Amino acid sequence: MEAEWIEKLRKRPDTERIGDDAALLGDTLVTVDMLTEGVDFLCTEAAPEWIGRKALAVNLSDIAAMAGVPESFVCAVALPKQSGPKQEEQNEHPVGVELAERLYAGMEPLIQQYGLVLAGGDTNTWHGGLVISVTMLGRATSRGVWRRSGGKPGDMLFVTGPLGGSILRKQFFFEPRILEALFLNENYDIHAAMDISDGLSLDLNRLATESNVGALLDEAAIPISTDALELARTTGRPPLTHALSDGEDFELLLAVPPEEGKKWLDQQPLQERFGVTLFAIGHLTAHAGLRITDPDGNPQPLKAEGFLH
Amino acid sequence: MEAEWIEKLRKRPDTERIGDDAALLGDTLVTVDMLTEGVDFLCTEAAPEWIGRKALAVNLSDIAAMAGVPESFVCAVALPKQSGPKQEEQNEHPVGVELAERLYAGMEPLIQQYGLVLAGGDTNTWHGGLVISVTMLGRATSRGVWRRSGGKPGDMLFVTGPLGGSILRKQFFFEPRILEALFLNENYDIHAAMDISDGLSLDLNRLATESNVGALLDEAAIPISTDALELARTTGRPPLTHALSDGEDFELLLAVPPEEGKKWLDQQPLQERFGVTLFAIGHLTAHAGLRITDPDGNPQPLKAEGFLH
Repeated sequence: MEAEWIEKLRKRPDTERIGDDAALLGDTLVTVDMLTEGVDFLCTEAAPEWIGRKALAVNLSDIAAMAGVPESFVCAVALPKQSGPKQEEQNEHPVGVELAERLYAGMEPLIQQYGLVLAGGDTNTWHGGLVISVTMLGRATSRGVWRRSGGKPGDMLFVTGPLGGSILRKQFFFEPRILEALFLNENYDIHAAMDISDGLSLDLNRLATESNVGALLDEAAIPISTDALELARTTGRPPLTHALSDGEDFELLLAVPPEEGKKWLDQQPLQERFGVTLFAIGHLTAHAGLRITDPDGNPQPLKAEGFLH
Repeated sequence: MEAEWIEKLRKRPDTERIGDDAALLGDTLVTVDMLTEGVDFLCTEAAPEWIGRKALAVNLSDIAAMAGVPESFVCAVALPKQSGPKQEEQNEHPVGVELAERLYAGMEPLIQQYGLVLAGGDTNTWHGGLVISVTMLGRATSRGVWRRSGGKPGDMLFVTGPLGGSILRKQFFFEPRILEALFLNENYDIHAAMDISDGLSLDLNRLATESNVGALLDEAAIPISTDALELARTTGRPPLTHALSDGEDFELLLAVPPEEGKKWLDQQPLQERFGVTLFAIGHLTAHAGLRITDPDGNPQPLKAEGFLH
């Protein structure tokens, strides 16, 4: 009797998983992202406020990747009991309540900016490193949500900003493309989308695979960030490699029909309103797999590389 | 313009926080609970399946405390890269994918039993201990949700089972009181409720404080679990102390008007259907603060003790 009874009380809509860490329940979007010390940030290099901001911003980026409206979030943290190693800019990385407060202070501007509600939290202390997990709830608009799976051969590929070198700065200070996504979804026909969290080549390969197509990038068209150029001087690797595989750019990757894409190149619809340039970087192909044109314009196989969890 | 525009797209209802880690958004319930190694479990003593089960069950207990219907959940984990210390019963605590799979295997029976949907996840590996965070979404029934704040002087206090000693076994194997809560909410008038996670005296003090009343427990009526008796032999502390302050009992604590309470004592409405006995343990009082009757029947002040995060 119990199972039937509980089923009667339920109003649960069908659940669709979108990507790895997001789902659509009716018109409610849910995403979850956990950041861990030593992997997603170093307490020796990042102020608590930066870490708090990042924990919230990566979830906002997941909502943006689906063109959703962010609404509320819950946050669980495991706070170290002992003080961490010395920081360069500060005396000591804080612990306990002070750390919690400073993590929250880093979230506050995004909470204000996007009108978010902190609906609940679970604060723990332990003898381990800092872990922060945010679950965000959002809403699909009447235009529906973007998925990774709708790309078609011939679709033009766009990104919303220069890529690579995010480890220097952008991993903490990127702007989630919430408003840009809502604007594009309201005004244009987008076939497939995701946010670039693990690296362009790796994430594009996921989008292409889920769309059951291949992709061809135009090497000369990949926008390389100044941070990628700066980082390349240290690593000795080509700036392009950084742009293709560093990850944590949190720019949108969009697949749009060629007629929309041409309009975008003509009009740059995000330029005036948001100061954001849309870069055409290649297109989806019936030819399976990931390829990139070399300097002579010939397609070469491209390995999907990036940050694997 | 942007803020107004995003506000127009939003359908977010008012948010009410219930307790520390749960909220009501319209008729959607959200709870979050994070378990950390060394605090909520020891990998030397608990199989991964137990830990996975507990991570889900504590959230189900939060939903039960509000008489909600659990629907779906997301789970984020930080998995240790190195193998932990030897376990008694097993060769070695697993890591990586095997650990993730065994955590999930421990959740599976509860997923089946309550018809839950795993809506998303975020799986990380790092050089730290095991951390597992579950966010659960549920639904309020047409009878509304229980809060901690509705208790009135004279209300009888009930618990759904014997208390104390949960560290021996029950912390991993307790049954969340989902069905019992739904049944009671459908058929009776309950003023205030919560689940006992941090210890009867500490949690009762919270319920009384939020209800703006005091509470008087009847020492002789507190149901003491056999595990509390067993544990008391090791610790040398009185079994009653364990029942009052151990926590992680995950039984419901209910404040009901005396007329309902008398019906419960007569009818034991959960007995036949769920095999659960309702124990009357005292009542709420206009007299502020927490008290307990001594063996002679005289009220004595009681300190609110338990597990403080």
